[in-house]
Amino acid sequence: MAIARTARRRGRPTEPLLSTEGITDAAIRIVSDRGYRHLTMTELARELKVSTSALYNHTPSKRDVLVRVQDRINRSIDCSGFGVLAWDAALEGWARSYRDCYAQHTAMIPVMAVLPVGDSPHTLEMYEAVARGLMDAGWPGAEAVNVIVAVESLVFGAAYDATAPADIFDPGELADLAPRFAAAARDRPRDPGEAADRAFDLALSAMLEGFRSRLSAVAG
Amino acid sequence: MAIARTARRRGRPTEPLLSTEGITDAAIRIVSDRGYRHLTMTELARELKVSTSALYNHTPSKRDVLVRVQDRINRSIDCSGFGVLAWDAALEGWARSYRDCYAQHTAMIPVMAVLPVGDSPHTLEMYEAVARGLMDAGWPGAEAVNVIVAVESLVFGAAYDATAPADIFDPGELADLAPRFAAAARDRPRDPGEAADRAFDLALSAMLEGFRSRLSAVAG
Repeated sequence: MAIARTARRRGRPTEPLLSTEGITDAAIRIVSDRGYRHLTMTELARELKVSTSALYNHTPSKRDVLVRVQDRINRSIDCSGFGVLAWDAALEGWARSYRDCYAQHTAMIPVMAVLPVGDSPHTLEMYEAVARGLMDAGWPGAEAVNVIVAVESLVFGAAYDATAPADIFDPGELADLAPRFAAAARDRPRDPGEAADRAFDLALSAMLEGFRSRLSAVAG
Repeated sequence: MAIARTARRRGRPTEPLLSTEGITDAAIRIVSDRGYRHLTMTELARELKVSTSALYNHTPSKRDVLVRVQDRINRSIDCSGFGVLAWDAALEGWARSYRDCYAQHTAMIPVMAVLPVGDSPHTLEMYEAVARGLMDAGWPGAEAVNVIVAVESLVFGAAYDATAPADIFDPGELADLAPRFAAAARDRPRDPGEAADRAFDLALSAMLEGFRSRLSAVAG
C-alpha cells in the first residue's frame, strides 16, 4: 500500500501542496505580510507554487478561502467557559481570548467583521456555545445575540489598540491644544501593550457590569 | 483684480487644484472607492491630475496626507456635550457621533485606530474636550484616557457592524451546528442597520453603566 501511494504521488507532484490547511496558511500569510488587497486567487496560487487552475480545482472561489481563514482563526478562540463557569465569567474569558486572537490578525478584521458565518463550522459552534451559555442564564434570544455583537465590537477595536504605537497620544508640537489630555496620557503605563491591557480591562469590566444589571432587569 | 488673477491662473493651470482640502478629499475618495492599499503619492497625484513632484511640493509625505485625513474625519465628530451635559450623557453623544462618522469611513479604521495624533489639531482638541469633561467629573487622568480608549475600541468595532450584511448570522446549510444561535439571530430586526443599532445601544448603555459604577468607587 505504501509503495502504491508513493507511486501515485510521483505522477502528481503538486498534489501534496494543495491541502485545505496549506491553502488557509498561505492566505493568512499573504494578508499578514502584504495586506488584504494582495489576497487574490492568482497571488495565492503563486504563494503555493501551483497553477491558478490547480487552485481553482481545489477551492472554487476567494470567498471559499476567506471562510476557511475565518474558521481557522475563530477555531483558536477559547469559549470553553460556557456551560462550566457563570455566564459572565465565561463571557469575560471568551472576550479576552477573542481579543488576543485578533490582535495577532488585525489585517483580517475588516473582512472578518462583516463576513457571513454560514459556511464556517467552528465559528457557528462557537456562537452556539456562547448563545446557549447566555440563554441558559436567562438572556432572551435576540438580546443574547446583541451581547455577542457588543463583545465582538469591543474586541475588534481593542485588537487594533493592542497594536498601537507607544506615541499614539503624544501631542508633539501641538501640546498647547491639549494640555490636560497630554498630561493624563503621560500617566499611562509606558509599555504600549500594558497601556492597552489596562484600557481593555476597564472597557470589558464596565461592559460586563452593565450586562449583569441588564440581565437582572429583564430576568427579574 | 479679477482680471489680473485670471491672467495669473492661466500661467499656472494646476495650482488651484492643489488646496489642502482638495488633497484630503482625493485621499478619502481613493481609500473609500479602491481601498487603503491604493493610497500612494503617485495615485494621489493622478487622482488630482497633477505631477507627483507638484504634490510633494505641497505635501511632504503620505503620513502628512494621513494626518490631514484623520483631522478631517475627526473634525466631524460631535463632542459638544462636554462641559454642558453630565459627563455620561456627553460621553454617550460623543460615542454615537463617533460611530456614525466611522461607519461612513470603515476603510480608514485600520489606519486611524493606530495613527499617532501628534499633528492633528482637531483630534487633539476633541481629546482635550473629552478629557476635561471626564476629569472635571472626578475621573483620575490616566483612567479618563482609558475611558476614551474604551469608547473608541467599541466605536471602531461597532462601525464595522453597522455595515454588516443582513445574512451575517445566517447558518445556511450548517444550521444543525447552531440551532439555538440561529433561532435567536432570526429574532433580531430584519433590517441590518436596525439590528446593528440595537446591539450598539446595548453595548454602549452597558459600558456607561459600568463607568458610572467605577467612578462612584474611585471618587467616593
